[in-house]
Amino acid sequence: MNDNHSSFAKSLINEGRLMNHLDELSRIGLNPKTGGINRFSFTKEEEEANSLIKKYMEEAGMTVSIDGIGNVIGSYGQGDEVIMLGSHIDTVPEGGKYDGALGVITAIEIVHSLHEQQITPSVRIEVVSFKDEEGTRFGFGLIGSKAMAGLLTDEQLNNFDEKGNSIKSMLPNHAFPLNKWKRTNIKAYLEMHIEQGRVLENQHLPVGVVTGIAAPIWQEITLNGRSEHAGATPMNVRSDALTAAAEMILKVEELLNKSDSAAVGTVGKLHVTPNGVNVIPGQVTFSIDLRDIDEEQLELLNGHILEELNKIATKREISFSSKLLQRVTPVKTDYYLQKLLESSIKKHHIEPFSLISGAGHDAMNIAQIAPVVMLFVRSKDGISHNPLEYSSREDILTATHVLYDTVLELIN
Amino acid sequence: MNDNHSSFAKSLINEGRLMNHLDELSRIGLNPKTGGINRFSFTKEEEEANSLIKKYMEEAGMTVSIDGIGNVIGSYGQGDEVIMLGSHIDTVPEGGKYDGALGVITAIEIVHSLHEQQITPSVRIEVVSFKDEEGTRFGFGLIGSKAMAGLLTDEQLNNFDEKGNSIKSMLPNHAFPLNKWKRTNIKAYLEMHIEQGRVLENQHLPVGVVTGIAAPIWQEITLNGRSEHAGATPMNVRSDALTAAAEMILKVEELLNKSDSAAVGTVGKLHVTPNGVNVIPGQVTFSIDLRDIDEEQLELLNGHILEELNKIATKREISFSSKLLQRVTPVKTDYYLQKLLESSIKKHHIEPFSLISGAGHDAMNIAQIAPVVMLFVRSKDGISHNPLEYSSREDILTATHVLYDTVLELIN
Repeated sequence: MNDNHSSFAKSLINEGRLMNHLDELSRIGLNPKTGGINRFSFTKEEEEANSLIKKYMEEAGMTVSIDGIGNVIGSYGQGDEVIMLGSHIDTVPEGGKYDGALGVITAIEIVHSLHEQQITPSVRIEVVSFKDEEGTRFGFGLIGSKAMAGLLTDEQLNNFDEKGNSIKSMLPNHAFPLNKWKRTNIKAYLEMHIEQGRVLENQHLPVGVVTGIAAPIWQEITLNGRSEHAGATPMNVRSDALTAAAEMILKVEELLNKSDSAAVGTVGKLHVTPNGVNVIPGQVTFSIDLRDIDEEQLELLNGHILEELNKIATKREISFSSKLLQRVTPVKTDYYLQKLLESSIKKHHIEPFSLISGAGHDAMNIAQIAPVVMLFVRSKDGISHNPLEYSSREDILTATHVLYDTVLELIN
Repeated sequence: MNDNHSSFAKSLINEGRLMNHLDELSRIGLNPKTGGINRFSFTKEEEEANSLIKKYMEEAGMTVSIDGIGNVIGSYGQGDEVIMLGSHIDTVPEGGKYDGALGVITAIEIVHSLHEQQITPSVRIEVVSFKDEEGTRFGFGLIGSKAMAGLLTDEQLNNFDEKGNSIKSMLPNHAFPLNKWKRTNIKAYLEMHIEQGRVLENQHLPVGVVTGIAAPIWQEITLNGRSEHAGATPMNVRSDALTAAAEMILKVEELLNKSDSAAVGTVGKLHVTPNGVNVIPGQVTFSIDLRDIDEEQLELLNGHILEELNKIATKREISFSSKLLQRVTPVKTDYYLQKLLESSIKKHHIEPFSLISGAGHDAMNIAQIAPVVMLFVRSKDGISHNPLEYSSREDILTATHVLYDTVLELIN
């Protein structure tokens, strides 16, 4: 365990510029009352942030282009084959300063540093700021990386926001057809991101190598019992949908606690009907978010959970139904890229530590067209999607140096 | 067990008139789209219903008056001492045809029958239709019986509805002072009411004698955990307010199931924050409605539940707080009046059966100034506060005859 890092290669990165850029970007879309940041796709805040990113990229010696879906891409060096770094600059409503922004700003700084040292890479480096990772506006996210991986469908492009504007309606005509968006020349994709959890904090480590990105299965469970007078119905004749839900919620927790894997399961959303103090709940709906990096294990676990919940419903004479809301394929990151990151981490006298990402990232989609890896940076108290989101300057610089060294290995 | 009853004394009650009156009253405030009935205090629907009740009372040979709070009272016979029968004619929103109305209409029919037979009672009989039992409009109910028992406070009279109209503002000046509303000459109060539960249905019995009215303790529990990313937070570091709530809900159920008494406990209302599929619940609030007819037992049980919930919160490192929302004193009904009802029931070759009322009734307040008893009538499927609320014609007639016989005993 080591909270510190050496100052190896530190001077190659302009730390002041990096932190200034992070600060400057964080003022775009800032709600001064809450400290929350609001940058959503196809808004003037996004446009302003993209202009700033374009300026930083150009100052870093890159040529900037925008692809069909609106990903902002800076290119440095020559050649067809590409080492790609990146993340996103959009936020959730009232989001924080680091989620996404950190990966874009540090990637630009790494290229800026190479440029200042007049290092010419053997392969081209691209830095990408992906369109709409958070999914705040159109009901689904990771849009830019989906497009780049050739996974975005015409149906998804017709998704619309609350005001009825579709994604498609906001794209220029020359952006189409869809299939020209798919990239095939990416040799490696590396993404730095805040952890959004407390695993690294608990390990007292500034960074960690992400070995896989867990993907969620989202289910909605509906229980129907009998809504009756809370005073006039003896305990033994009740058909209470909420006590049934309670037993199921504990069962989900128990099965996940028992599991050897890194799987997690969460009942995050629950609604009681009619929701009156003196009425036995007649209906309860609740969500289950189930994640693992091993798809087969995830399927098994999901099946097991549904079976156990069904048993509880039968025992309690409650009607049970489940509806699949979303299923995303989990991703394992590239072993060679993991080893490269670990080796850079060791050079900084930090214990190399592997963890999985419970949250989804653009790297999940890029994994369909290229080897990917992610470097996580310690998050204070694990907080994210919140103005209180915080990673220390020291951890950010450590992570940037680690990624810089890894990029150097890849381009030499 | 006996679903039938003899035709003993049946001819003394005009069954057609009774059922017609019940039907006629049910058309006032009827929502033709839903079949639900809406009669709230100080509305034209209530006024219309009161006029009809007044007409029925006068036809039954009674002199009608309205007391300070607006209870409609029909008086039959002479003397200071009073045997009182009654219930209420207001409804919950989209209520049913029997809750309250049944007790008023059958009481009038009983007097009407005595009047037709020219039976002069040895004590005066009063039939009362209580003001605002349901509490739909001013945030609390049983208003008419509270007033009659001298329990209504000036503070309560200043309670206002959604439009800011207080109870006081709708009463005539001559209604005051408050203290003149309290009655001291009631020798017995008998209330017929639908059961609103399924105890009698399960026993295959048309009627039952209410030995006590359980009173609720209402608590609001607030749990605070940590709201974190459902994917990025391993199971073993979570502080999930909803899994804690689930364990508490099951504990409440378990303690009530174990209890020997007729106590019931219900978590009817629950709210999760932030209530997102992929967010661990940071806060949960839920209600506990706890009832028993034995006040001491109720207190013990309540204390025991809070203690157990606290243990769960401590074990799970969740912050726990409880707030008392309401505490009503439970009531035991008069033993002598119970025996009188039982004796009438036996005369009809029905097994006398005792049960408690889980729901509150005007009789609870009148119990503070007079001996009371209630006669419950079987409710189909236990449904109440709903257009589907139903008691059969046969059960209603049985109950009316039982009550008639009991009144005869009391006035002779």
